[in-house]
Amino acid sequence: MDFLTENVTTASIIAIVVAVIGLAFAWRQRSWVLAQPAGNEKMTKIASAIQQGAQAFLSREYRAVAILVAVVTVALIVLGLIPNSGMSSWTALAFVAGAVASGLAGYGGMYIAVRANVRTTQAASESLNKGLRVAFSSGTVMANLVVSLALLGIGVLFIIFTNVLNLDPATSASALAGFGFGGTSIAIFARVGGGIYTKAADVGADLVGKTELNIPEDSPQNPATIADNVGDNVGDVAGMGSDLFESYAGSIIAAITLALLGAGIAADKVIHAQVFPLLVAALGIVIGIVASFLVQTKEGATQEQLLWSLRKGVYGASAMVAVAIVVLGLLLDLGWGVIIATLSGLVGGVLIGYYTEYFTSGSYKPTQRLAESAEGGAGIIVIRGLALGMFSTLAPVLIIVIVTLVASWATGLYGVAIAAVGMLSTLGITLATDAYGPVADNAGGIAEMSELGESVRDRTDALDSLGNTTAATGKGFAIGSAAMTALALMAAFITAVKGGDAATATTFAAVLLEPKLITGLFLGALLPFIFSALSMLAVGKAAQEIVAEVKRQWNTIPGLPEGKTDPDYETCVAISTDSAIKQMILPGVIAVGVPVVVAVLTVLGKGNIIGQFVGSETLVGVLIGSLISAFMLAVMMANAGGAWDNAKKYIEAGQLTGKDAQGNTVTYRKKSEPHKAAVVGDTVGDPFKDTAGPSLNILLKLVAIVALVLAPLIYNAIKSDIVPPVGGSNTTIIVPTDDQTPTPDVVPATDLTPEVTPEA
Amino acid sequence: MDFLTENVTTASIIAIVVAVIGLAFAWRQRSWVLAQPAGNEKMTKIASAIQQGAQAFLSREYRAVAILVAVVTVALIVLGLIPNSGMSSWTALAFVAGAVASGLAGYGGMYIAVRANVRTTQAASESLNKGLRVAFSSGTVMANLVVSLALLGIGVLFIIFTNVLNLDPATSASALAGFGFGGTSIAIFARVGGGIYTKAADVGADLVGKTELNIPEDSPQNPATIADNVGDNVGDVAGMGSDLFESYAGSIIAAITLALLGAGIAADKVIHAQVFPLLVAALGIVIGIVASFLVQTKEGATQEQLLWSLRKGVYGASAMVAVAIVVLGLLLDLGWGVIIATLSGLVGGVLIGYYTEYFTSGSYKPTQRLAESAEGGAGIIVIRGLALGMFSTLAPVLIIVIVTLVASWATGLYGVAIAAVGMLSTLGITLATDAYGPVADNAGGIAEMSELGESVRDRTDALDSLGNTTAATGKGFAIGSAAMTALALMAAFITAVKGGDAATATTFAAVLLEPKLITGLFLGALLPFIFSALSMLAVGKAAQEIVAEVKRQWNTIPGLPEGKTDPDYETCVAISTDSAIKQMILPGVIAVGVPVVVAVLTVLGKGNIIGQFVGSETLVGVLIGSLISAFMLAVMMANAGGAWDNAKKYIEAGQLTGKDAQGNTVTYRKKSEPHKAAVVGDTVGDPFKDTAGPSLNILLKLVAIVALVLAPLIYNAIKSDIVPPVGGSNTTIIVPTDDQTPTPDVVPATDLTPEVTPEA
Repeated sequence: MDFLTENVTTASIIAIVVAVIGLAFAWRQRSWVLAQPAGNEKMTKIASAIQQGAQAFLSREYRAVAILVAVVTVALIVLGLIPNSGMSSWTALAFVAGAVASGLAGYGGMYIAVRANVRTTQAASESLNKGLRVAFSSGTVMANLVVSLALLGIGVLFIIFTNVLNLDPATSASALAGFGFGGTSIAIFARVGGGIYTKAADVGADLVGKTELNIPEDSPQNPATIADNVGDNVGDVAGMGSDLFESYAGSIIAAITLALLGAGIAADKVIHAQVFPLLVAALGIVIGIVASFLVQTKEGATQEQLLWSLRKGVYGASAMVAVAIVVLGLLLDLGWGVIIATLSGLVGGVLIGYYTEYFTSGSYKPTQRLAESAEGGAGIIVIRGLALGMFSTLAPVLIIVIVTLVASWATGLYGVAIAAVGMLSTLGITLATDAYGPVADNAGGIAEMSELGESVRDRTDALDSLGNTTAATGKGFAIGSAAMTALALMAAFITAVKGGDAATATTFAAVLLEPKLITGLFLGALLPFIFSALSMLAVGKAAQEIVAEVKRQWNTIPGLPEGKTDPDYETCVAISTDSAIKQMILPGVIAVGVPVVVAVLTVLGKGNIIGQFVGSETLVGVLIGSLISAFMLAVMMANAGGAWDNAKKYIEAGQLTGKDAQGNTVTYRKKSEPHKAAVVGDTVGDPFKDTAGPSLNILLKLVAIVALVLAPLIYNAIKSDIVPPVGGSNTTIIVPTDDQTPTPDVVPATDLTPEVTPEA
Repeated sequence: MDFLTENVTTASIIAIVVAVIGLAFAWRQRSWVLAQPAGNEKMTKIASAIQQGAQAFLSREYRAVAILVAVVTVALIVLGLIPNSGMSSWTALAFVAGAVASGLAGYGGMYIAVRANVRTTQAASESLNKGLRVAFSSGTVMANLVVSLALLGIGVLFIIFTNVLNLDPATSASALAGFGFGGTSIAIFARVGGGIYTKAADVGADLVGKTELNIPEDSPQNPATIADNVGDNVGDVAGMGSDLFESYAGSIIAAITLALLGAGIAADKVIHAQVFPLLVAALGIVIGIVASFLVQTKEGATQEQLLWSLRKGVYGASAMVAVAIVVLGLLLDLGWGVIIATLSGLVGGVLIGYYTEYFTSGSYKPTQRLAESAEGGAGIIVIRGLALGMFSTLAPVLIIVIVTLVASWATGLYGVAIAAVGMLSTLGITLATDAYGPVADNAGGIAEMSELGESVRDRTDALDSLGNTTAATGKGFAIGSAAMTALALMAAFITAVKGGDAATATTFAAVLLEPKLITGLFLGALLPFIFSALSMLAVGKAAQEIVAEVKRQWNTIPGLPEGKTDPDYETCVAISTDSAIKQMILPGVIAVGVPVVVAVLTVLGKGNIIGQFVGSETLVGVLIGSLISAFMLAVMMANAGGAWDNAKKYIEAGQLTGKDAQGNTVTYRKKSEPHKAAVVGDTVGDPFKDTAGPSLNILLKLVAIVALVLAPLIYNAIKSDIVPPVGGSNTTIIVPTDDQTPTPDVVPATDLTPEVTPEA
């Protein structure tokens, strides 16, 4: 395959050609969707209102963002003109291209979504399979737009920067990153603006409809209903499109940058490593197109069958991409390290999606338990939901940590970036299943508003419910891939900047050479979330036992309701005691155990395989990660809890006034609706401010004190390592003289290594 | 003052003497409180039930924890016996001492609290001032127990380890840390177990009382009411005592450790630096005792006057301690650096307390706004409360960051530890105001249960309400000081372990020499919290506008309620659009702006004062901090939101069953109570999963991509620094040969510094 690796041009051209094929496929799908019948007059009227609303929002949004884009473009040009800035004014070109491509991907996806919705409704009135085909096809339009525009942009810019302008590698990398920056600048506003829009309309429609005026959310009488449907499109479609455009482009750019800067790559493989991400992405697009034909179902399909029909597409594509990665890696002679790293990302992405579904779908225990807790009232279900959310961070964090460790163990920093590329390589199909969701949701809304028959509603409900599941998986995937991409970009940044000066080099060498530090930070940050989840759940459980006991006494002790007998206080005290003692064990043991386990692994792992993945750097990471994450959570919980408590008291004190239906001023008191709402807030706040929050205070010190006690052990265990002689095969880092922390180190006894002693 | 600094014995003895004085004062206060009348028979009966419950819980808790303490003690002895472990078996002695002291502090505080409560009720029946005196005096018992036992333990152990056993500095430091570890081991279970107990009883009593059976929380007919009152004591008193015992001891141990290891201290000041934290703590105890006499009020005092009477004590003590620190620092000839660092901690602690009150008290805007949002229903107030909590992380993080930067700028790592000591130096009085709260709360409960007259209830209510305010301040202070202590312990750990091997030294040097990295991590972690808070608030605001518009249309468009006219959809669409566009600006600009500002400051700050506080290490910190914190929050929000949504759907699908009052199985449907609760959960989840959560995806990539674009600029800006020659006045760090990430670095052009090139 020498023609591929002589220079990057061939691969860039292949990427461009595939991107054009992807765009052509998107156009074909678009035409097919638009050719479908759009239903009766009422339906088209509603659909057209949604189209106009969505169009109007996106125009306003893009106009607003255009100002930022213009400012940044000028700034980038100026920066490129500054002598010795090391940047090129051409970065501005990439930036604008990225912004336009990201905007186009979002716009195109939304354009087709607001037209596919009504056609899905109409198709669903014929058959379930037809409905699925229309909605899914519109998803493939956006998915292929996203991946193709990203790959096209990168391919073209890469040729311009390296072949036409002949920029040096560092400048080239920075300029290429401009493309990602452009995409992100659109994405941040698309996500935030779209997110606010969609939920403002949804929550507003819900609140006013269900709570006060009793108009159903999707009733044509609800003035907010069109805005609600518009929201689904501007938030979930356009926002999601720009988001994943950015992850996709970012991961490829990071991999290319690391290859350009030669981080973790043998000198004779630098070109191969630049070519690889482009070709993986290109193959992914082709495979995604093929796999999208796998998605169909038969009439009367169950929810499981519908889900499976979408899964066939995703899993089929993943399997094909995996094979393609192996073949491509071997053909390019990049070695198994690169292949393993890429595959680890691919597998990680699938797993994160699966676990997200586990935690959020009504088919599994976590959500079922959550539903059961609704019997305890609004406060309890909110607490349990927050705890569920915190607890669910476990799997994604562990998966990201493992992928990072495996990928960097297999092939260094480049491995982290290529793992991100691997994770996103099936985006052409995963995003299609994801973008399908809001279309199906809209289709249901339109069926309701147009008052179509029940059989149509049943079909659109089935399609909609499926969309909820795929949306959850898709959200998990989007977060996981964003994190991997960010890690990859970070690695690229550190590689680009390190060596700038000595102090920086020291810092960056530490972060750079030690995936253990970063994974330790992740694990440390995870600890407070799990710990808080466990202690909040414990309160819920124990409170329910108390409630049951009080009810039992009330119903069985004669004279108690009339106040003639004293209740049995002791049993309640005993229940509280038992349940608190029983349930403090697990969080307490986790808190003490995790730092001890990491310390023990550090000591045991020296010089063997464990030491490749765990070390004292991990412990430092856990230390810092848990400190920061626990501090944030503790402050948030304590203050939110305190504020809810006092807000309730504020109302009870008669300090809150409002207007009644006649416009008269009323003072809210106990038992008023606002007071009941405040009681829910206070109930949520109670375990926040008095259980989880304060417990975090200890957690954040605990890890540090355990580490300090075990410090000599760790010191002695790691110092027994072979210490290379000064001036040997290693190079040195200079510690700068302008350091502010003079440290004439009194070093623990029997020190063998040269010391870091910056001058005062 | 040479007699103080010849060796550490004199100062240790002074510390021991002062600790004994503190214990004597605690005993005097205890005796005074117990000498107060305990009220009528009904009151004593209730009080005695609370005493027994609290006693029973603490016994069970301590028995459970004793197992852990025994296991860890054996483990520490064994570790000390291992040849070359570098640890001493005497660490076990310190561990047991710490555990016993922490347990005693918690037990003693609770012992007096459950006896002071009823005496406060009785005293309040005479006068407000008497009630305040009794409750506050019981607070001083625990406060002085905590600080005195901690200082006593450290003083005695310090003499044993350094003078009697003559352990080397590193072993000595580790052994001393055992005292803190013992305290933490008790504290973690006291906080978690006590926290679960208190809220289980409280939430249980609340739920059953208010919601279903309509018994007031404090009614003697409520079987959970005694458990509720017990909970206040085991959670807030015993838990808080053990928590702050640990922070207090930990900060002193960290400062002594850093001094022992000579981190950041001139060689001739090593003893001075060990003596200083002991003497600051000792002076703090004496001043706290003096200041506690300032706390009294006149009859008929307003809430402000009551608060002021407590504030007098705290502010008076802070001012006196500040003077004492300056005098002591000058006498010991430690220089203004150490003095500034200590004062920065003291001021930081006061400020964190103040800001916590601002965010959580009903006297200020944030909580008042929160109360107003209750009109929107339970979902809205929960969302706003979470947003308030997230937003309120801003001030504490900034304060901790500034204190860390100032302290380490003033006097290096030792400065961070001594700042923590400074922050905690007034604990003898701040903890007293804090421990006062639960006593006043209990006093109110007892007044209610004993059916005392309204004038007594009014007084106990006033005292209780004051307790809520001081509890909020106290919680903020506890978290802030815990974070500073953890930072100090971490600095001590890193100092103790670095130099163990070369890779570790590199990592640790980076973290160690660069407070910028750590402060960057904090700032980075803050970003997603502020960002999420803003976007969630935006949803709330926009939703309320929609609700108002729908109501307006419903009331003004003729025929709409009857379904004869179409509503005006366009206005709702326009409102959503306007408000989304308007409110996406701030979070978007913050997200793009923060990394740009840090990068610009890095470039501008090179070689001047800005560069002392901000640098490329800050940017790396922001990068990693925001990645980790955004990832955690994004996963939590997306999954919690998804689960709430599906829990609601699960109920709507008729999959949730329960038992009615007659014990028959019922299936819950729409409009049932559990469904209404699930709707609240879903309302909270909406902005989680569709606004804030997905926006965080972009945030976590955005910082990295901005950094990557600006990489050449940063590289070129920092490389222009004077690079010291190899082998000059600096020492070298060796990069190990067993590194897994081979990096034949292609370094950006015009590189001047020697490169880090580990071998493959």
